[in-house]
Parts: sequence; structure tokens; C-alpha cells
Amino acid sequence: MWKRIRRDLGKTGESFWIPENLEIKEKGNRMERREIYTKITGKAETMKQELVKIRRDFHRYPELGWMEMRTSSIIASYLKRVGCDEVLVGRDVCLDEARMGLPADEVLDRHYEEAAAQEGTELAYLSDTKGGFTGVVGILRCGEGPTVAFRFDMDALPVLECKEEAHYPTKEGFASRNTGVMHACGHDGHMTVGLGTAKILCELREQLHGTVKFIFQPAEEGVRGAKSIVEHGHLDDVDYVLGAHMGGGLEQKEAAIGIGDGESLATVKYDVEFYGKGSHAAASPEEGKNAMLAMATAILNLHAIPRSGKGDTRVNVGRVVAGTGRNIICEHAHMEMEVRGMTTEANTYMKEYAERIIRSAAEMHDCTCEMKLMGAAMNGINDDALSDRLAKVCEEDLHLPVVRLKKGGAGGSEDYSYMSERVQSHGGQSCYFMNLSCCTGTLHNERFNFWEEALVNGVKAFCGIAVELLQ
Amino acid sequence: MWKRIRRDLGKTGESFWIPENLEIKEKGNRMERREIYTKITGKAETMKQELVKIRRDFHRYPELGWMEMRTSSIIASYLKRVGCDEVLVGRDVCLDEARMGLPADEVLDRHYEEAAAQEGTELAYLSDTKGGFTGVVGILRCGEGPTVAFRFDMDALPVLECKEEAHYPTKEGFASRNTGVMHACGHDGHMTVGLGTAKILCELREQLHGTVKFIFQPAEEGVRGAKSIVEHGHLDDVDYVLGAHMGGGLEQKEAAIGIGDGESLATVKYDVEFYGKGSHAAASPEEGKNAMLAMATAILNLHAIPRSGKGDTRVNVGRVVAGTGRNIICEHAHMEMEVRGMTTEANTYMKEYAERIIRSAAEMHDCTCEMKLMGAAMNGINDDALSDRLAKVCEEDLHLPVVRLKKGGAGGSEDYSYMSERVQSHGGQSCYFMNLSCCTGTLHNERFNFWEEALVNGVKAFCGIAVELLQ
Amino acid sequence: MWKRIRRDLGKTGESFWIPENLEIKEKGNRMERREIYTKITGKAETMKQELVKIRRDFHRYPELGWMEMRTSSIIASYLKRVGCDEVLVGRDVCLDEARMGLPADEVLDRHYEEAAAQEGTELAYLSDTKGGFTGVVGILRCGEGPTVAFRFDMDALPVLECKEEAHYPTKEGFASRNTGVMHACGHDGHMTVGLGTAKILCELREQLHGTVKFIFQPAEEGVRGAKSIVEHGHLDDVDYVLGAHMGGGLEQKEAAIGIGDGESLATVKYDVEFYGKGSHAAASPEEGKNAMLAMATAILNLHAIPRSGKGDTRVNVGRVVAGTGRNIICEHAHMEMEVRGMTTEANTYMKEYAERIIRSAAEMHDCTCEMKLMGAAMNGINDDALSDRLAKVCEEDLHLPVVRLKKGGAGGSEDYSYMSERVQSHGGQSCYFMNLSCCTGTLHNERFNFWEEALVNGVKAFCGIAVELLQ
Amino acid sequence: MWKRIRRDLGKTGESFWIPENLEIKEKGNRMERREIYTKITGKAETMKQELVKIRRDFHRYPELGWMEMRTSSIIASYLKRVGCDEVLVGRDVCLDEARMGLPADEVLDRHYEEAAAQEGTELAYLSDTKGGFTGVVGILRCGEGPTVAFRFDMDALPVLECKEEAHYPTKEGFASRNTGVMHACGHDGHMTVGLGTAKILCELREQLHGTVKFIFQPAEEGVRGAKSIVEHGHLDDVDYVLGAHMGGGLEQKEAAIGIGDGESLATVKYDVEFYGKGSHAAASPEEGKNAMLAMATAILNLHAIPRSGKGDTRVNVGRVVAGTGRNIICEHAHMEMEVRGMTTEANTYMKEYAERIIRSAAEMHDCTCEMKLMGAAMNGINDDALSDRLAKVCEEDLHLPVVRLKKGGAGGSEDYSYMSERVQSHGGQSCYFMNLSCCTGTLHNERFNFWEEALVNGVKAFCGIAVELLQ
Repeated sequence: MWKRIRRDLGKTGESFWIPENLEIKEKGNRMERREIYTKITGKAETMKQELVKIRRDFHRYPELGWMEMRTSSIIASYLKRVGCDEVLVGRDVCLDEARMGLPADEVLDRHYEEAAAQEGTELAYLSDTKGGFTGVVGILRCGEGPTVAFRFDMDALPVLECKEEAHYPTKEGFASRNTGVMHACGHDGHMTVGLGTAKILCELREQLHGTVKFIFQPAEEGVRGAKSIVEHGHLDDVDYVLGAHMGGGLEQKEAAIGIGDGESLATVKYDVEFYGKGSHAAASPEEGKNAMLAMATAILNLHAIPRSGKGDTRVNVGRVVAGTGRNIICEHAHMEMEVRGMTTEANTYMKEYAERIIRSAAEMHDCTCEMKLMGAAMNGINDDALSDRLAKVCEEDLHLPVVRLKKGGAGGSEDYSYMSERVQSHGGQSCYFMNLSCCTGTLHNERFNFWEEALVNGVKAFCGIAVELLQ
Repeated sequence: MWKRIRRDLGKTGESFWIPENLEIKEKGNRMERREIYTKITGKAETMKQELVKIRRDFHRYPELGWMEMRTSSIIASYLKRVGCDEVLVGRDVCLDEARMGLPADEVLDRHYEEAAAQEGTELAYLSDTKGGFTGVVGILRCGEGPTVAFRFDMDALPVLECKEEAHYPTKEGFASRNTGVMHACGHDGHMTVGLGTAKILCELREQLHGTVKFIFQPAEEGVRGAKSIVEHGHLDDVDYVLGAHMGGGLEQKEAAIGIGDGESLATVKYDVEFYGKGSHAAASPEEGKNAMLAMATAILNLHAIPRSGKGDTRVNVGRVVAGTGRNIICEHAHMEMEVRGMTTEANTYMKEYAERIIRSAAEMHDCTCEMKLMGAAMNGINDDALSDRLAKVCEEDLHLPVVRLKKGGAGGSEDYSYMSERVQSHGGQSCYFMNLSCCTGTLHNERFNFWEEALVNGVKAFCGIAVELLQ
Repeated sequence: MWKRIRRDLGKTGESFWIPENLEIKEKGNRMERREIYTKITGKAETMKQELVKIRRDFHRYPELGWMEMRTSSIIASYLKRVGCDEVLVGRDVCLDEARMGLPADEVLDRHYEEAAAQEGTELAYLSDTKGGFTGVVGILRCGEGPTVAFRFDMDALPVLECKEEAHYPTKEGFASRNTGVMHACGHDGHMTVGLGTAKILCELREQLHGTVKFIFQPAEEGVRGAKSIVEHGHLDDVDYVLGAHMGGGLEQKEAAIGIGDGESLATVKYDVEFYGKGSHAAASPEEGKNAMLAMATAILNLHAIPRSGKGDTRVNVGRVVAGTGRNIICEHAHMEMEVRGMTTEANTYMKEYAERIIRSAAEMHDCTCEMKLMGAAMNGINDDALSDRLAKVCEEDLHLPVVRLKKGGAGGSEDYSYMSERVQSHGGQSCYFMNLSCCTGTLHNERFNFWEEALVNGVKAFCGIAVELLQ
Repeated sequence: MWKRIRRDLGKTGESFWIPENLEIKEKGNRMERREIYTKITGKAETMKQELVKIRRDFHRYPELGWMEMRTSSIIASYLKRVGCDEVLVGRDVCLDEARMGLPADEVLDRHYEEAAAQEGTELAYLSDTKGGFTGVVGILRCGEGPTVAFRFDMDALPVLECKEEAHYPTKEGFASRNTGVMHACGHDGHMTVGLGTAKILCELREQLHGTVKFIFQPAEEGVRGAKSIVEHGHLDDVDYVLGAHMGGGLEQKEAAIGIGDGESLATVKYDVEFYGKGSHAAASPEEGKNAMLAMATAILNLHAIPRSGKGDTRVNVGRVVAGTGRNIICEHAHMEMEVRGMTTEANTYMKEYAERIIRSAAEMHDCTCEMKLMGAAMNGINDDALSDRLAKVCEEDLHLPVVRLKKGGAGGSEDYSYMSERVQSHGGQSCYFMNLSCCTGTLHNERFNFWEEALVNGVKAFCGIAVELLQ
């Protein structure tokens, strides 16, 4: 049996669990720790070739958000094989109606056929993904104790991979075979780290007391997927949640763990349709309802939303397509936009102001409008207590270089924030950290590549914090 | 007793009245005509000095719209003196709630005091004008027959009169003594013509069969006054309505009567207030409601109302005052705008679109708005039948030069259109013509002046058409 | 030999030619006229089946602007066959650099291959059309005398033809076989009338004294083609130019010739590109150059160009495509717009204002811009003298019903105006008239169809006016 | 003789001076410190009645920026009387051409006459202020050593002081006698603290080694005055600069010293004039050049400047006045605007973008524009080392309550930043702190009042830090 010990460390209340019959004997535990961390280090390093192989396979067959069908099948199969007690797939992972920014049915169906035909797909798990039900949750149950969740994101980007020989994946022969799709954001590495971590923790399950959830999330790009996992309830019983992102510039001479404040911007993303009425622009412009004017008014006013004193904000109309012909009053305008806020309050201010602008701009020109939510993320922030524990484990137990970052999220917005917010809302803790190595290109660039040493470091860090939290 | 004779002359049905016991004996009447027109001509020419004196007095004491208090008192007194059967003043002229664009109470009250103190004011009629109830209607009743209405506008403009010696009113010593107010639109002449016409027709009343209404209308500038006279009902029984405007450029070498289509643009004029909420523009812009952005959005979108295929249109935001300080989110914005349309349909399109824009621009920035109707006019157009009769009378009977104009209103908008529309709506006819002479300056300019010969011509034309219609 | 006789008829100076040794003997000529008009009438009616066949062939194989390759080959072949003295094709028709709104090279090349393979193409004339050099001019020289030009436009529209059985072309089996392209503006009829006219006039060449040019113009839709024919010089020696458009609603119970003022709006059409710089909309929006804001500012301000007192105007931004992704500052925006003016002066005002807005909107957001002229037309207006002669010929000589229209162009803009303007600029005359019949659908609609009786009427009218002008 | 000792304290290099023949004997000095701080405390408390009297006199006769004529004369006289070695006034304080946002000459002249007539004005110093040369610098020279500058701002606000009895100045009879002008930002207190500090430090001059400058700055409101003092060179030899602002809400139960990061936003403020051309909005709108449209376009686009990733930004158009009449195309528009940036880089981005928008908006509508710089401030930030020393002195030596603030400037922008930037640019340090007490109203409100206990605290704090830095 366990008991929860609460200690006041810094501004966030921290709590942890200890066996009921024990007193806190930190010195004694530290002795056993040395042994287990040595094991983790050894296993991770031994696993390097396997990790590289897994990563390159993912990189070779990248899949866009909600279409990680081959990917999901391989992950589910692997988790089952290494000994997870439970492997959830399909509708057991993402809540149907909470999925945002889903591709059209025919796009999903077409890719399903492609995935079925692709080398390496684990057909036993494929059918569960039909209709965009990608994502996998592996659960390792080690008796009573806290629950720790690790989140790994899965989707690739609509980027045409660089074909130059100097580009490492090209040189080593694992460049994308799905033309126009590329793992240019390191998610291939994230998933690989997740699988390696699962394998080692399953082997060390006797040393753990509590539960580990390995959450493989679809559709992070566009912040579309996390919400549906959270709303399914997978984070409701979680005490600690952690995630990580590949990163680091050319100046990052050694692979390291970067820990910052994990801050990311809250965001809301809409596709907006303005519906007017066409008419001949010379003969009877007054009979039209000008969706072009509604859209132009919205664009200018959206950008003109007054700044907020409650936190830095952002707004962008990034893409529009409107009208059919030069001499026809525009009948339909399509607009893709987003707002962001450094705080939830600032983001809500932007969201509500934007909605009002869009509605009023439509009304102004006698048009109607529809707003379709295409993505959203909360404002994320690390808990100092968990960040400090992670830093200590990495430095003292795993002998990994640690960089304390001023800012420490991946920049911009991350829908990991849905998970951290849910965990923090019931008193749990979150930490989102950087898995640093010497990267070429920048994130989302056709030349992006990380150093594969980071795969080993990532596995060490996740295994290490699991032991810290569950031993 | 009279009987109404209807004849189909051109596209508008024309009707007129003849004594019941008579047949139409045009030849015979024409004989008598010669005599009566000779009388009109003689009386008008004899009256020239009096007309000049009246005009110069009006010019010397110009009064803005709804503040023609001294002016009204003099007109009422004159009409009574020359023998009108009835002289309506005060609330009997303009319907209180239909008066548009009224000055503030304190402005009205202050001018009332000034008018009371001014030389020439007829105190017996002054108190009726208190609170902006200016305007006079004189009625000459000559037994049964059609009713003819003549309209003369009364108000001056907020223009500082030219002080150069070459400016005729300055040279002759009758320049405005009300600094910053000037009869720069010829209304001093219009009223003078009205009084001269009334005097002569009263003298000729035995020759007339029917009723003549001399309508002296306040607040034509800004098209604010006509509606309240129409809504009082003064035009409901009118068969023919006529009005005239001074005009002509330097090339107009002889005074003449100009007759065109009388077309004027329908228009609606609003004062708009946007109400938001102030806040510090650096510390808490998000707490404000930005009336400045609402206004700017309205300005751009008002001008961007798509053109109409139903007729040429106009829109203008001519004046705005908004905000209190550079670093305060603007709490209140005031905007003066107008729309126009060559047809009533086009004007209505503009009006409704403009109202929607203003409302939506306010909503867009979480503000409220108020629109105050400051003026309006219908689309006016002459009846060809009446125009032709007027032309014939002037040329054949009065031997006045007649110019057939391509366009023949004063240009822009005229709230005379309220009167013509009411008369035409029950089958009557309207004609708005130009009293041309060699004018200096342009209308509304500080140097505007017309040739006083036009006063005599105007009297002849109005008297002449009265005889034509009522003899 | 001929001599030019000038007579002052109405506001436009009219001139015509007579044989040098003759006096004007109208009565005598009228006798001969009867005979020749009887011949025209007979020939046209006899030709009806041929006309219908030609029209249905054109309708079956519609071709878009600058791609009337099969069409041109058939026309050239026909004109040659019926006896035109000269048939110009390829680069002899349109001046290369004056062609506006040309499709991309690969589109032209692809269609060239298609046309080569299509049934009916006259291969002897096809190669001249390569690269978009469509258009044909047939010349009939009948000795000295005035030069008359008849203009027929050739291109179809990107409209998917109606497949319902009730649609006449579907029912009769001549619906478009080029999917998505349709003669929905009656140009199939225009060309057919042109060929019929050419055939009959060639047969009657002995009766004519002067020159007839049959101008078959490409790319009228988007007002792209006329300028290049005019700039080639084909209108420089023309004394009279005429054109006609199919039209008429369901209420048009008999085929008739409609003659109005021929007024069309001058217009200029631009494709505009705004070039900015992309950047991440959350991380570094300040590093971008926002082409979306430039475009939105341009759209609003273009529509907000103040109306002109010099004539009714139009402006429209009908189509835009901008940006690549929601969270990227827009790097490139494409905008398709047009301005129009009832007078050349009003159109020039709009054009220059629009150019300034576009340039300034780009500069405002540190972007650059390009404007590509995609089409243009002058302001067209009929000469009353020529209209009256046409009306008289139709009514008195050809016994065709004539409708005097209030407005008489096809509405909107027509690049026929380039031709009329050139002819009028050296003292010649122009008339653009309507070939009315009971039409289904409206112009540009997928159901549009005219009554084939109109083909015969058109031939009669063109032949008739040719005889009137050249006999 | 002195020697400069540099020590590394925190992130900013700190240096100080010690007599050449001494070693650092902190313990020994601390003994003497106790004695001198006891003296400061005693003198400040004894002075309370005098401070209150001075403050109330300033409050009674508030003067707007660049018009602190009476105020300057009293300050100069006082500084001279208490023993400053040098007292600079008139053109020796502010560099003429660097003064921003100066009132019109006639306004300055009128107030000069008023000030001359007002009770309490020290006429000996008044003439130096003529033409807006207000501001005073008092210098106390105590041999070699560092130079410390204290800045006190002088101007009042255009606020009508509250007349309710509950308002303390009203109740105590020292409410403003200059109607419509009020010390609603606490500058009356700032100056009083400055005078009290000068008096005590003059008395303690034997204990000091170095120079103290008492800078009384005009025209802080609108950030107009500091630059001209800095550009005169008064900060060029300064090692430490400090300033303070009254503050605190109703919850501030005891007077205290608040120390934060002193951060303020960089800002630039412009008055913008758009010049177009008037014309009649119905008859000839195309002949105008519409300054209203230029302004509206500028307003929307200024607010729409994309946010910056380089630091939070602000923009506001706070006040506009444009146009003369509803039916006239607007000829002139006046606009008051400002931009701000949390960093100098962000502010420069906003400034340059804003200038480009204004220029382009004018060009777009064929107008011209003028931008007049009305105020500017740099980005200010405290040096932690100096802040920490101030905190230690207040707490340990003066036994004053100290509140460590999260943010610690007065909020918004402060042109004190011109001084801190100049001092920091040559290696010196700056600290701007809050003089907290229970304040009624908020800053700039008609009910604003601070607790007069804060006057004593302020004197203690400034004297204390002077001793810390110069003993």
C-alpha cells in the first residue's frame, strides 16, 4: 500500500507517493537508485541500433495528421510485443466528436488503401484506424502508485523532402517515400523514443510502483489531436505528464536535455466561410451580396484587434480563396485564420473579438458566415517542482548534460497543453522539455534533421523520470 | 362652380379646371391674356426698387436654418399687409416632430434673443418662431379652382462673406452683419421674389379662380425643412407646385428663365455616434471598446458600397470628430455622412446598406451606435406638361428669354422634392426652374451674388404661371 | 470615281460617297433598291438550312478565347471558298504584342493538338493559329467606294452545358462536345451570320462599290482580342463599322432587329500580384511582409474609390487566392479586378485611382506588386445617323421588325468599342445592334439558346446595310 | 583622491568609488552609517510640516508641460536658498531644439503673464522661463567621487479637479486654483520630495564625496521633456540616476518603498496631418482628394500592424478631427497616434511600419501628409545591483517597509527612460522606484490624492541612497 506525501516546494504544491510502511529514507534509496539508473543507461545504449532502425522506418513512411494509419499499426504492435498490459487503439484513443481539423472522408479512405498496401504495416491493427481513428495508448500497470503519462506525437508535415545528397536522410537512404509528406518536425524521433522507453520500462517493471501510460497522439500539427484524447478521459487519473520535442541548432555540439518553462501560446484556429450572392459586377452589382468585401473587412479588422495588456497576442489570416471571376460579385470566400495568446485570458479575448468581427463583417455586407474550429491549444506551462526533479535525475543519475533554457517549449503553440492543463487542473504536474542535439535545418524545413544520439538520450530521460516518480 | 378637364398631354396626365358653365374657348381667353400679362409685366417692373430694398435687407441679416426668426416675422407681416387671406406662422407651418437637423435648444434660444434685438424684426410675429418654428405660409383664396403652391426657401449659410470692395454687397453696403452667416445660395432673392409675387397676385385677385399658397420654407440647406411642411399637410390639396433657384455663370449675359428636367438626387443624411469605452491604450487596451476602429471601418465600407445598376449613387463621410487623447482608447466618435441616389430605388439601396454597415461596424468592436436623421430629400423630376406651359407663358406672354436646360435643378439634392413628390403622388404637377442671371462666385461661395434684374424676372414668371393656371 | 458628300444630320457629322458623275437621285435609286433587297431576302431565306448546319457545328465544338483554332480554320476556308478577294489569318490578323489575357503556352499547345485531331478542322489553315494567332479577316473588294467592316466574335465560355433534354442543343444533338466549354453567349450565331453575309455579298459583288471587311475576332470574353486587331491597322481605312449581338428574352415572340444607343462601359481589367515575405505568424510575424494585409487594404479601398460626377462607374475585385497556410505570414496574393466607366474620362479616373491604390497598398506593407493588363475596352456609342439608316433599311427595305431600344448594347462592356472608337476617331460611323429572338436562359448561362430564325435575320440586316452603304 | 572599485554583483557589472588611501572596511563603515542614517531619519521627520506646505502650494497652482513657470521659479529659488552650489535655469536646462510637443507661442506667452501675476512666483527666476524654458537643475558638489542624479518631474494635467468635500485637497483647501489643470499624477509630491532631499543633503554635505544633481524636469506628460535635458548633456557624467513615482491603491495600508524592474515601454508619438482637396461630394467627388479615406485607411492599418515576436507592442489612434461638412470631400484630417514597444527593437519596428502606413495611405488617395513628433521615450529597465542596494538601504538603514514589485515602473511609458538609457550607455546604473502610500483615485483621475506621509518616506529614500552611493 501507498501513501501520498505532500510537501510545499516552491509555488506549486508537490505531492508524491511512498509505500505505506516506509519512512522517507532518501539516503538509502539513493543507493538502490544508482543501480537502476546504471541499468537504464546500459539498456538505452545497447538499444541504439534498434532505435535508429525504427526511426528511419517512420521517417521513410511519413503520414499526415489523422492519417497515421501505418504508423499506428506499427506502434500498437510494438507496444503489445514488448509487454504493455493494455494497448488501446481506434475509437478507444480519441473521442470521435472532439477530433478537430479532420481531412475529408475521401482523403481518409484513399490513404487507408495506401497504408494497407505499404510495406511494414501491421494489418492486425490497421482496421481500427479507418476513418481517421489513429493514435495509440499503451499502459504498463505496476501495482499501486501514481500514474505517469508520457506523450509522443505522430504526424508528419506536407513538406517535400530535400533531395540533396548532403541531407542526411537522403544520403542514408531513408528519405520520405511519400512524396510531399515529410517528418520535418522530429515526430519520427518522438515516437521512437516512446517505443524505446516502453520496452525498457516493461523490462524494469519490477522496480516500478504505479502506472505508466505511453500516449501516442495523432495530428499535433495544427493542434488538432490532443483534445480528443483528453476528452476521452485518458489524462483524468494522471499525476505526472511529460512530453519532449527534438530541437537544437548547429551550435548544439553535444546532445543534451533542455529544460525551460515549457511555455506555449494558447491558440484557436478557424476556417471561415463567407456566403454572399453572385451577380454581374457591371450590370447589377446591387443585386449581389459581396462576400469579398466581408472578407477584406474581416482581414483588416482581425489584425487590428487592439493588443492586450493581459499578455502578448497573435493573429493571422494565412490563406484565403474567394470568388469565381473578375466580373462577378463574389459569392463565396474561404479564409483560414488563427489567434493566439500568451495567457488563456489573452487568447480568450482574441477568440471572442475575432468571432465578433467575422460575424459583423458578414452582416455588414448582408452575407452569412460559418466558423469551423480547426484546432486549438491551451496555454502550457511547466511545474517547477517536476522540472527540477527531471533536471536532477538527468544530471545526477543519468549523467546527461542539462541546459536550463530561458524559454523551453518548442515555441509557438502545442496541444500538449491540453494534457498538461487537464493534469494540473486536478493537482498533478507537467513538464515539457527539449531533447537537444545538433539539428540541420529548422523545424518544418525540408532540410530538418536531428542527431540520432538524441534518440538514446530521450529514452534515458523518460525512463529516468519514470523511476524517479514510481520507484 | 368648376369642372376638372383631363387631357392627355405627353406621358404625364395633365388636368385643369374650368368653370362649369363654360366651354373651352382658348382663342377668346388669349385676348384677355394679353391684357393681364401686360399688367403683370408693368407691375413687376414698377416694383423693382422695392424688390431690391427687400432683398438687401434679407441679405444684410442672414439667418441659419430653423433660425429664420427675424426673416419669418418680416415675411408674415408683409404677406398680411399686401392682402393674403390667411398667413400661417409658427407651429401651423412645420410639423414639430418632422423637423430634421434642428440646432440645440440653447442655440435656438440665443438667436431668438438676437433676433428680438435686431433692426427690422416684426415683433408681433416673432414669438411664434420661438424654438425653431420658422417658416410662413400665405394663402390667397380666389374662389373655386385649382390650388397652386409656390415655394421659396429662406435660410442662409455658415459662410463668412467676402470683404473685398469688388464684392457687390460689400460695395453697396448690404453685406451680412451677422458675421459668419451669409446668403450665399440666393435664398434672399427667392424670398424677395415670393413677396413680390404675393403682392401683385393679391392686386390681381379678381382675375384668378382658385387658390395660391406662398410657402416660405426654412432650413433648405441640409434638406431639413421641406418634409415638416409636407407632413403638416400643406401640399395635400395642391394641384400645381413650382419653385425656382437663382443661378447662372458669368457668361449669362442677360437674365433669363431656365427650364430643364428639374432632376435632383434623392438623399439621406445622418449624424452617427459610435459609443465605446475608454481605457489606457498601453496598460489595458483590451478593456476598452474602440469606437475609433468602428468608425474607421464604417468610413471605408460606406465608400465601398458596391455601385448600383439602378442609377448613379453617391456617398460621403464629410466630417468626423473622435476621441479625447492620444493614449486613450477612443470612447466616442461622431461622424457626419450622407448617401444619394439618382433614383429613389438607388437611394434606398444606399440608405439601407449604409445603416447596416454602421450597425455592424459598431457591433464588430463591441460598441453601440446612434443614427440621427439630419436631412433627406426625394428624387425630384419636373412634369413636362407644366414645364412646357411655363416656357410658353414666359416666351409668348411675358417675353422673357427662355433657356431649355439639359439639366435643370440646382444640381445635387433639393428638399423641394418632398413637395413635388407629394403633389405628383395625387396626380398633380411640379416644375422647378432656374432664375438665371450673371452671377459672381459659385453657389455657397463667399463671393456669390446674383444680378438684381432676376428679382423682376422671377416675379413675372411666378405671376405669369399663376394666371396661366388659375385664370 | 467617287466623291464624298457630307451632310449635317443630327449631332454627328455624317458623310457618304457617291459616284463622281452622279447627282443625288434618291427616288431613282429606290427603284433599283427594291430589286436588290428582294434578292437579299430570297438568298438569306434559301440559305437557312446551311446557316443552321454551320451554327450547330460551331456550337458542337466551342473553343475558348485565343484558342479558336478549329473555328478559325473553318472560317478562313469558307471565306476563301465563297469568293473573298483576300483572307487574312494568323499573325496577319492580330498584332502579337497587343493580345491581352493570353492563356499559358502549354494550354495553347495542348489545345492545338486537340484541334488538329478534331473532326472538321481545315488543316490547311490550322498551322497559322499556332500560339494563339486565331482570328480571320475576309476582304471583298468591289472597286472604289467606302469601306464597311462587319465584326463577328468567335470565342466560347468556360461553362458546362446543360444536359437536360429540354435544352434545345441537347435535344437536337448539337450540344458541346468540349466538356466545360460552351457557346453560351451566342458567338456561334454571330460567326454563322458573318459567313452567310459574306457568301451573299460575294454573290452580289457587282452591285457594290467599295470594300467590305468581314472581321472575325477572337477572345471577346474578357475584352481581350479587339485591341490587337485594331492595332494591326485593320480599322484604319474603315468608314462604317457594325456589329451585332444575339439577345432577347422569352417575351420576344418574333425575331427582330433591336437598335439602341449601343452604349457600353469602358473598362480595364488587371491581374494583380502582391509579393511579400513569409514568416512564422506566432514566432516572428515582424520578419514577414504581409501580402494579405496589402491585398485586403487594396480590396476595400478599390471599392471605396469615390464615385465620379463625370459618369457612372464600376469596380470589382472578383477573385483572389492568397497565402499558403494558416500560421504563415502570407507571401503572395493574387487578385483579379476590373474598373469600368460610362465615359472614357470616368474610366480613366477609375483606372488611375486603382493603380495608385494597388501600388500604395503594397508599399504600405513593404510588399511589391505587379499589375498585368488582362483586358480593356473603350466606351462605345452608336452614331445616330448610321443607326437611323440601319433602322430604315430593316423596316422599309427588308421588312424586318425593328425595336428601338432604350439601351442597345449587350450591356456591360464590349471590346467592339476598340473598333468603333478607331473608326469614329477619323470621322467614320459605328452601329452595334441587337439580333433579337426568343432566347432561353440568359447570356453566359448553361441553358442559353437563341432562335435559329435570328441567323437569317442577321444575314439580311448585314447584307442590307452593306447595300445601303455601298450601292 | 578616489579610486574606482569594480565588483561583479549579479548580471550587471557594478562599480563604485573609494578614497584612494582606504581599504574596504565594510564593518567599520557600517558603524558610521548608523549614525548618519539616524540623522537623515530625524531631519526628514522634522521637515514634515514644511514638506506638506510646499506640496500644497504646488498642488494649488498646477501648471501644464513647458509652462511650469511659477513652479520653476520657486524651485530655483529654494535650491539656491538651501545651499546648492549651482542652480541652472532657462536655456541652461533644456536644449531648445530637442523640446517636443511645445504649446503654441501665444499659449506660452499668455501663461507667462498669468504666472507673473500669481501669488508666490519668484520673479527673479521667472524671466528665464519665457518661451517655455522651464526645468531646473540644482548641483551639490562634495569633492571627488561619483555623480548621482535624482530626477523629479514637474508638470500637471489638463484635468478638472474634483470639487467634492471628500476629496482631500478640496477639504483641506489646497485644491487647484487653475481651473481645468490639476496635479493628478503626483508630480507635486515628486517635486516636494526633491526639494526636501536637496535641503537635507546640503546640510549633510560633509558626509558626501562626489556630486549630486537634482534634476527638475518639465513636460513628462506626453513624454516630451526628458530628451531635451539629456541632449543638453546633463546626464553625460552621471554614474547613478534614480527617480520615483507616487503610487499605491486603497489597499496600501502603510507608506512603503516599492522596488520592481522599472520596466517601461519605448514609445513614439505623432500628430499626423493629411492634406487632400475639397470638392462637392455629389456634383464632383472625383475632383477631390479624399483625406478622410486616407485617414480611415491609416487608422485600420496602423492597428493591423502585425504583432512582433521581439517584444510586446502597442498602437493607438486616440483622437481625430477631419473635414468641414457632410457634403464636402474632406480636405484635411488631423490624427493623433502613438506606438510603443516593450523593447527598443519592437518599438522601432512599430515606428517605421507606422510611418510607412501613413505615407502610403496618403499617397493612395493622392493626398500628402505631415508627421510631427510629439513625444518619445526609450525602453527603461532598472539595474538589479542598484535596486538591491536601494532595497537594503531602505530596509536595514532607514527601517522603511519595502515591497518587491513584480512590475515596478509607473506602467506605460516614462521619459525618465531617456535619462536611464544615457547613464546606462556609458556603464552607469539606474533605478526607478515607487513611493507607495494609500492613494485615492487612480493616476490621472480627478480624485487622485496620495498620502502625505509618502513625502517624508521619499526624502528618506533619496537621502539614504545618496549616502550609500557617495559616503
